[in-house]
Amino acid sequence: MLFHVRMDVNLPPSMPEAEAAELKRVERDKAQALQASGKWRHLWRIAGQYSNISLFDVDSVDELHTMISTLPLFPYMTIQVMPLCRHPSSIRDDDK
Amino acid sequence: MLFHVRMDVNLPPSMPEAEAAELKRVERDKAQALQASGKWRHLWRIAGQYSNISLFDVDSVDELHTMISTLPLFPYMTIQVMPLCRHPSSIRDDDK
Amino acid sequence: MLFHVRMDVNLPPSMPEAEAAELKRVERDKAQALQASGKWRHLWRIAGQYSNISLFDVDSVDELHTMISTLPLFPYMTIQVMPLCRHPSSIRDDDK
Amino acid sequence: MLFHVRMDVNLPPSMPEAEAAELKRVERDKAQALQASGKWRHLWRIAGQYSNISLFDVDSVDELHTMISTLPLFPYMTIQVMPLCRHPSSIRDDDK
Amino acid sequence: MLFHVRMDVNLPPSMPEAEAAELKRVERDKAQALQASGKWRHLWRIAGQYSNISLFDVDSVDELHTMISTLPLFPYMTIQVMPLCRHPSSIRDDDK
Amino acid sequence: MLFHVRMDVNLPPSMPEAEAAELKRVERDKAQALQASGKWRHLWRIAGQYSNISLFDVDSVDELHTMISTLPLFPYMTIQVMPLCRHPSSIRDDDK
Amino acid sequence: MLFHVRMDVNLPPSMPEAEAAELKRVERDKAQALQASGKWRHLWRIAGQYSNISLFDVDSVDELHTMISTLPLFPYMTIQVMPLCRHPSSIRDDDK
Amino acid sequence: MLFHVRMDVNLPPSMPEAEAAELKRVERDKAQALQASGKWRHLWRIAGQYSNISLFDVDSVDELHTMISTLPLFPYMTIQVMPLCRHPSSIRDDDK
Amino acid sequence: MLFHVRMDVNLPPSMPEAEAAELKRVERDKAQALQASGKWRHLWRIAGQYSNISLFDVDSVDELHTMISTLPLFPYMTIQVMPLCRHPSSIRDDDK
Amino acid sequence: MLFHVRMDVNLPPSMPEAEAAELKRVERDKAQALQASGKWRHLWRIAGQYSNISLFDVDSVDELHTMISTLPLFPYMTIQVMPLCRHPSSIRDDDK
Repeated sequence: MLFHVRMDVNLPPSMPEAEAAELKRVERDKAQALQASGKWRHLWRIAGQYSNISLFDVDSVDELHTMISTLPLFPYMTIQVMPLCRHPSSIRDDDK
Repeated sequence: MLFHVRMDVNLPPSMPEAEAAELKRVERDKAQALQASGKWRHLWRIAGQYSNISLFDVDSVDELHTMISTLPLFPYMTIQVMPLCRHPSSIRDDDK
Repeated sequence: MLFHVRMDVNLPPSMPEAEAAELKRVERDKAQALQASGKWRHLWRIAGQYSNISLFDVDSVDELHTMISTLPLFPYMTIQVMPLCRHPSSIRDDDK
Repeated sequence: MLFHVRMDVNLPPSMPEAEAAELKRVERDKAQALQASGKWRHLWRIAGQYSNISLFDVDSVDELHTMISTLPLFPYMTIQVMPLCRHPSSIRDDDK
Repeated sequence: MLFHVRMDVNLPPSMPEAEAAELKRVERDKAQALQASGKWRHLWRIAGQYSNISLFDVDSVDELHTMISTLPLFPYMTIQVMPLCRHPSSIRDDDK
Repeated sequence: MLFHVRMDVNLPPSMPEAEAAELKRVERDKAQALQASGKWRHLWRIAGQYSNISLFDVDSVDELHTMISTLPLFPYMTIQVMPLCRHPSSIRDDDK
Repeated sequence: MLFHVRMDVNLPPSMPEAEAAELKRVERDKAQALQASGKWRHLWRIAGQYSNISLFDVDSVDELHTMISTLPLFPYMTIQVMPLCRHPSSIRDDDK
Repeated sequence: MLFHVRMDVNLPPSMPEAEAAELKRVERDKAQALQASGKWRHLWRIAGQYSNISLFDVDSVDELHTMISTLPLFPYMTIQVMPLCRHPSSIRDDDK
Repeated sequence: MLFHVRMDVNLPPSMPEAEAAELKRVERDKAQALQASGKWRHLWRIAGQYSNISLFDVDSVDELHTMISTLPLFPYMTIQVMPLCRHPSSIRDDDK
Repeated sequence: MLFHVRMDVNLPPSMPEAEAAELKRVERDKAQALQASGKWRHLWRIAGQYSNISLFDVDSVDELHTMISTLPLFPYMTIQVMPLCRHPSSIRDDDK
């Protein structure tokens, strides 16, 4: 099942640079592993924002929540989730 | 270039059913032709809503606007456009 | 999987009473059949509003969307969907 | 009487980990005791958020407020309360 | 129990004046009967608006919803309900 | 004249407990004195919130502002004021 | 006492021009009489909008509401009222 | 030309009292000088809020911005500006 | 002086096509005459919307309001006006 | 292609003045270099706000995002991006 997720990152300006860099490094590693597994299907940057639009392809809502809530940046993100389904006008049976 | 588009459809309940059906038929034909051309890359239904999330892959903003504003349902839709770009943590060079 | 759904009904005051009554009768029948099937787990009225809070227990997002979008009142409702999952402090494994 | 409650938790990132862990431990104990008593009927996590949707079954508004306002996380939560009542299309007399 | 209710009235300008006058007459009769019964404790007009702030004193949420949803103007009102309880700094045990 | 006031209190979690307790103690004393004087006619807690709904009965807007802006918690509150007047369907000449 | 009032006018495009012109003529007469009386102290157009900002100087909230709610355009206006008082940095005792 | 300005002041509670008092003293001096010059035509307190409504009478937008942005409290204020013009129903040619 | 104006057009779907076409033709003529005069400095379409962003260069707020409020589409537009001034980091003295 | 960008700057009041001054100096240098290159076509201050409206003329969304996200003030700004295109009523083929 597909879920549309928007993540807005808000790191406090007072966070030491080294701590922020390490957080982002671990976040990237985790995001790339989830992409490689096929669970995190798409990941785009919203122009002009420290935000992304993502598409997750998961077996259950619990799996989705576990993935998102264990991201290193989770405590610093505002997150919105929308369940998606096949559009009747899509030319694909499985538009991932 | 990729653009994220959300379309919320609001057909007036007073529209005759035949007129609505014809509008939707032409809309679907146009949407499927644009998908086949590769310009309309993704088209998903938002669960529980008469709304879709779409990804367009176009050469210019003018091309995007022409496509959207000539859709038969355009006068009945609320539309939001967000330009997207490659995310630095994406594992793909061209995540379409 | 559980989905939390809020439905706000807006029937146009100009709708003939007989038409509104028939719509509501068919809606109730459908809602009760879905409740009997176990798919529509809870259905509550929000006090003071022509609105409800519902819990759906479905196998997929597509199943959820099909149920909601075929309700007779669907064209007259504003609908919000939130996916839910087990809360770590819940005392139940399956809180439906 | 049933009340629908949404709680959004906002712990300041500067809170020491041990303090946060202790707060959450006491919160969980209290939430589980209230669930066991039958007053806190349902407790779900909203996917992708540090938030929950809860159903309380109480004898009075005062009882509800006392329960919520004495939760250890109360000072860190944004809370919305909606009174619910039986829906005329419900198949249950007492849908808790 | 006390509930704080805000009602905003939106009569369509196209409603015939006689119909509007009759609606308002029946609404007033019902509102006054409920005030006389002690259930509708306070009723104030918000300055500059076709809106009121009301305090209801009821035995249950169901009783509240039945009263509000059977008001003649109910189909033309936007309504917000907030449950109230005793304030710890109130000098009254029962501030109605 | 009656004014409807909503006060939402936001004490910073970093405030020392003794300072908060003293602030609240002085606030309560002042609120109770104003209630005793008849100026602060009603004071209710909004269920689930660190907020109140109040009715003030004052001779002028200046008097109202002086009362509110000298409350000890004023720097920590978000406040909304709405002027009220007699409702034509009220059964009382002076519904305080 | 001074009250700050914003009025946004929304005449339905379907209203016959003669009816709209007559409404506006009566509205202007009434607005000018109230200005001449000193009750409607200021009246400005918001640039680019069919809206005004007004200052009323009245003896009571009831007087204010009676003036506003009997304006011919009242059924077509969205209105917001804010009570004002003397600013401590004003150089005037009575800034009307 | 007239501009309608709303200023909401948000001084951080952690600011030392002496610093806040000095800021407010300088702000008052500057506000009174601008009022005396005729540029800051009106200054009212919004009841119950640490906010004001002001009318500026300036020769250009640049002059307006310079005045506002050099106020000592500018870094602590949320500010909204609306250009005003003569209302066709005003009884004054120059309603300042 | 420069003013930033956003115009969102909402033509009722029930308007006869010939009437809409004539309205738009007259609107375009007027918009082009104002552009030729130098008063309407910029006019852009917002992608995906029946909306524009415009820059006006006028001598007074009254002149601006007269231009906007006499546009044929004025009754069908939602309009927002923001006064602009020279930015201190601009490389131009007069950035029109 | 043209993009309309609004930037609202929020420097924390606790930032040392020298640090803020240096940030602004580097920001100005960078903004002026981008203006000189023709990529940052317009830059205006919004009256009364620490905010600007900008027009960027770029070859791609990626180029736009790189420019904005490398501005020294980027971590302190709220940014909104809207793609623009030629308006059919514009008298210019290329309204930059």
